[in-house]
Amino acid sequence: MRGNSVSAENDISSDISSKPRHVGNDNSSHGHKVEVPRRNNLLRDFSATTKELFFHDDPLYEFKDQPKRKKLLLGIQSFFPIVGWARDYNLFKFRGDLIAGLTIASLCIPQDIGYAKLANVEPQYGLYTSFVPPLIYAAMGSSRDLAIGPVAVVSLLLGDMLKNEIDPKKHPHEYLRLAFTATFFAGITEAGLGVLRLGFIIEFLSHAAVVGFMAGAAITIALQQLKGLLGVTKFTTNSDIVNVMDSVWSNVLHGWNWQTVVIGFAFLAFLLTTKLIASRNKKLFWVAAIAPMIAVIVSTFCVYITRADKKGVNIVRHIEKGINPSSVHQIYWSGPYLAKGAKIGITAGMVGLTEAVAIGRTFATLKDYPIDGNKEMLALGVMNIVGSLTSCIVATGSFSRSAVNYMAGCSTAVSNIVMSMVVLLTLYVITPLFKYTPNAVIAAIIISAVLGLIDFKAAYHIWKVDKLDFIVLLGAFFGVIFKSVEIGLLVAVVLSLAKILLQVTRPRVALLGNLQGTNIYRNVEQYPNARKVPGVLILRVDSAIYFSNANYIKERILRWLRDEKDLNEKQGLPNIEHVIIEMSPVINIDTTGVQNLEELHKVLTKRDIQLEIANPGPVVIEKLKAAKFTDRIGHEHIFLTAGDAVAQCAPRAIENA
Amino acid sequence: MRGNSVSAENDISSDISSKPRHVGNDNSSHGHKVEVPRRNNLLRDFSATTKELFFHDDPLYEFKDQPKRKKLLLGIQSFFPIVGWARDYNLFKFRGDLIAGLTIASLCIPQDIGYAKLANVEPQYGLYTSFVPPLIYAAMGSSRDLAIGPVAVVSLLLGDMLKNEIDPKKHPHEYLRLAFTATFFAGITEAGLGVLRLGFIIEFLSHAAVVGFMAGAAITIALQQLKGLLGVTKFTTNSDIVNVMDSVWSNVLHGWNWQTVVIGFAFLAFLLTTKLIASRNKKLFWVAAIAPMIAVIVSTFCVYITRADKKGVNIVRHIEKGINPSSVHQIYWSGPYLAKGAKIGITAGMVGLTEAVAIGRTFATLKDYPIDGNKEMLALGVMNIVGSLTSCIVATGSFSRSAVNYMAGCSTAVSNIVMSMVVLLTLYVITPLFKYTPNAVIAAIIISAVLGLIDFKAAYHIWKVDKLDFIVLLGAFFGVIFKSVEIGLLVAVVLSLAKILLQVTRPRVALLGNLQGTNIYRNVEQYPNARKVPGVLILRVDSAIYFSNANYIKERILRWLRDEKDLNEKQGLPNIEHVIIEMSPVINIDTTGVQNLEELHKVLTKRDIQLEIANPGPVVIEKLKAAKFTDRIGHEHIFLTAGDAVAQCAPRAIENA
Repeated sequence: MRGNSVSAENDISSDISSKPRHVGNDNSSHGHKVEVPRRNNLLRDFSATTKELFFHDDPLYEFKDQPKRKKLLLGIQSFFPIVGWARDYNLFKFRGDLIAGLTIASLCIPQDIGYAKLANVEPQYGLYTSFVPPLIYAAMGSSRDLAIGPVAVVSLLLGDMLKNEIDPKKHPHEYLRLAFTATFFAGITEAGLGVLRLGFIIEFLSHAAVVGFMAGAAITIALQQLKGLLGVTKFTTNSDIVNVMDSVWSNVLHGWNWQTVVIGFAFLAFLLTTKLIASRNKKLFWVAAIAPMIAVIVSTFCVYITRADKKGVNIVRHIEKGINPSSVHQIYWSGPYLAKGAKIGITAGMVGLTEAVAIGRTFATLKDYPIDGNKEMLALGVMNIVGSLTSCIVATGSFSRSAVNYMAGCSTAVSNIVMSMVVLLTLYVITPLFKYTPNAVIAAIIISAVLGLIDFKAAYHIWKVDKLDFIVLLGAFFGVIFKSVEIGLLVAVVLSLAKILLQVTRPRVALLGNLQGTNIYRNVEQYPNARKVPGVLILRVDSAIYFSNANYIKERILRWLRDEKDLNEKQGLPNIEHVIIEMSPVINIDTTGVQNLEELHKVLTKRDIQLEIANPGPVVIEKLKAAKFTDRIGHEHIFLTAGDAVAQCAPRAIENA
Repeated sequence: MRGNSVSAENDISSDISSKPRHVGNDNSSHGHKVEVPRRNNLLRDFSATTKELFFHDDPLYEFKDQPKRKKLLLGIQSFFPIVGWARDYNLFKFRGDLIAGLTIASLCIPQDIGYAKLANVEPQYGLYTSFVPPLIYAAMGSSRDLAIGPVAVVSLLLGDMLKNEIDPKKHPHEYLRLAFTATFFAGITEAGLGVLRLGFIIEFLSHAAVVGFMAGAAITIALQQLKGLLGVTKFTTNSDIVNVMDSVWSNVLHGWNWQTVVIGFAFLAFLLTTKLIASRNKKLFWVAAIAPMIAVIVSTFCVYITRADKKGVNIVRHIEKGINPSSVHQIYWSGPYLAKGAKIGITAGMVGLTEAVAIGRTFATLKDYPIDGNKEMLALGVMNIVGSLTSCIVATGSFSRSAVNYMAGCSTAVSNIVMSMVVLLTLYVITPLFKYTPNAVIAAIIISAVLGLIDFKAAYHIWKVDKLDFIVLLGAFFGVIFKSVEIGLLVAVVLSLAKILLQVTRPRVALLGNLQGTNIYRNVEQYPNARKVPGVLILRVDSAIYFSNANYIKERILRWLRDEKDLNEKQGLPNIEHVIIEMSPVINIDTTGVQNLEELHKVLTKRDIQLEIANPGPVVIEKLKAAKFTDRIGHEHIFLTAGDAVAQCAPRAIENA
């Protein structure tokens, strides 16, 4: 029984048959036929594709129908969002920003010292990176919650890759120059991607890959901190877990310094306790936020009183006083290190970008404000370019500090300005006081910070939802902890792409059945009640048909045919005389796809089976027509719906149902 | 007016509501609801994926329900198809094979000499390659039409890559050893892909890329032959068009040898004329097939009589007599050349494989016999491994000779055996006679052969059907002619993959409208008559939702919403209160996709717009359920069809329609 046939008789619109560009069977639903969209010319086609690829966010939308003056203002505003929100700024907002800024400053200062160590540079460079870049970002960035500065993973990646080129202990000056060169190119990369609107490139790192990569990097960083935490002097420079654990155990008897161990673990316990408190009660987030600063103050005081540094407790010893010196003349503008710096910078810049954009988007969704990926990249890029000229290493958005910033009630990027000012003050006034800060406490602060990067909840969620994604996660994770951060990153990207290609190569070809009493056809695996139509094989191809899967799809269809034939013979059912391919999900088809469809048609014709096509989409029908496949198969074998096709091929089967 | 509603009342099956795993709205079509497929356990999921990836052709199908003896026979037969078809072999078939074998032998002998030159080895190695490999293939291959031997493109690729490692003029012995090493690894690669069932890897080279690559290689080869055709002595060893044309013109006044030019162009004209005759009248294909042999005989005789070789006409001079010597001890089994040979062999093997499989499939489709890609690869691999041990270079299926084989009426691989025997005879008896064959004629034969690789018709077809494919074609083509064969190949693979990734990154999100008088919703761009439903935005996502496009899809949906809102405000239509996402084409969704869907839901909820999901597929609904998205959006907002969703959201809009 056909649901649609009842109303069909009343409804056949008389005007439709006069339209020219129709393809398909005349008996289609209510006189509707498969339509072939008017073919665009090549230029329009090309410009449409380009628009979707590069300008999908319609960046000029706001400029439409505006007076010239307004357009100019909007133009300035689009590069400097600060111009937009500064006019609405008020004391109430400033109160939130001030508290948030002070909180993240107290969190960032000890972290900066630690992250500078991860990058194998002196502590002041970490602080420099929390002074200049946040100011640039505040003017140019569109996120209201991002806290800018050096971050653990990027600093580790930078340190790891720089170390492979220059030994930071033997040639500290050249190492530093290469670090600034890399930072410069990180900025160029980020700004370049933004200006060229190639931001979509970072989408190729999947969420699962990022979760695995971050967890691996966190463990790697935490393990490296064992050096500081245990006071071990001879320690591997490799970052993989095997070498690090080997260093820890081979020093277990004579290499550890018990005073350091006591200080380190005491403060680690303190920091983790404050974190636990904060996670139990969200209102107490500030306890965890100021704990690192307290740990630094208390431990520095203790060491100063007891002079524990004379008993083998390592201390920071020296931080240069004063603000960022210029580093314009330090960057390698030529020579072999230019290319090496560029390579390192591109990698570090991309990772920094991925992190900042992900964090920015998360908070933008929470507060529902728009964030423009490409403009964001430009802001981050300019910030790192300026940073590289003022003695900074690569800066980006920090996940932990951004979260604190958000919870402390920041409302604009002014919190970054406040933080920057506090860092300025620190650089001018307080740095000498850090002299007695024990390295073990810095190590404890880094460990407690990076543990937050291990997202068990996300990993469990991924495991539950998508096993293949979980494999990508594990690949990135193990790549980082057993080899290195770069290898882990490479594994993450390759696995992410391989996952897409795998799905494109082996798409599903589903067997459809009729839902009783309707004209609807659905996958019999999903709908066990859906009934097959005798003599007709109805298949749905669940993917675009491309060169990479066209042959598989053809063979899979022939396999379905063979299996159904075997089944029919066993059950004494009639032979299959029609194969209906429902093409709704086929978004696109390429020349190889059309060719395989033609081959399928030939093979079926030889076997006296008629091929029918149901519901081809606009692109598909256009290409089938261009390739003259529609002529070869015959327009009467192209239907608007699978139901129409069945009604035509097996009218009796339907009536008996 | 809803077409389905009429029959709905009679049909609501009472038993359906008792089924447990249903999700979705109770008012769905005729009581049918979206069903969640029973979740497979991980192992079964994994084995199903593995099966589709590696054993999609169900290789053990024939063995099912067979007695043990028969299974053994089938097992032997599956490795040596000759056991299968030899039993039905008869004199009638042999007649066809004999004629075909003799024809392709007359074609292959002069070609072999030329292709050996492309690979920078002495002429006899080309003939060796037409003796041993065809015999192995005849026993193991499943194609009945493939003519085996050295082919132009693979020989050129091999010569190009080998030359980069060892100079063939300075170190001919080492060069030859590396050539055998590469051939060995080409065989290992091909057999390995077959055994590991990784044959799908070669699918990643798209048809368009192959057409462009082949055309580029043909032009490169033809240009290189100008050296022989013009009798130029000082000639570039590079294969790119700029260097070659430079060599030709810089020698135009003093470097050309007029006797050579006359011989060369006379026979080239002869060969092209026979080709023209054959293309005009398919029955005269043999004219073109034996023309090269006639050209060799006539020209050799002429040179011998006139002693034109003393006047500067280059001749073949010497071909070693006798059959293939062993080359087991020549292969580099260790040392630095092992890895280099392996690298070259892998590339050459893959290209050879692509060509042979494509040709094999074409003819198998023409005659409708099954061909097993993975077994075919094993056969080709074993053939090249044995070949490398018996002084052969890489062999594969030749397109031109296979076509002749087919047209001459071959019925089994026996034609390859016949050809092989003729080559054997040539090696023993006739080789000394080739001494006076002018190189210009060999050049003319190669040029006339490779011109057939330029497939204008296919290129025009690709241009008409798919512009993006045409860009891939051009990329491969220009890569080959302006840089080198390897670069062209790389460009072809990268562009092919980029095309897939581009389509996955920017999928279409289509706006749907109702086809008047039906319950069917279609893309308004394809069906201009489809009418939008007031207050409801119906969108269809035409792709799997993955990390690479999830954010784009979310933003694209929000952009549709914004545009429709603007339009509604202008036209005074009601605000949009529901967004229906029709998910039929969404084959799969990953964790990033679910996350973006959740973000979309949050944003829409903030704007007082209800999100509705229509027709999620089995994988999608399973993952949405696992991620608890179904709970969050509410089961009553998941519908079997877009029509059901509209009926629920805007019952009045439907009634008024």
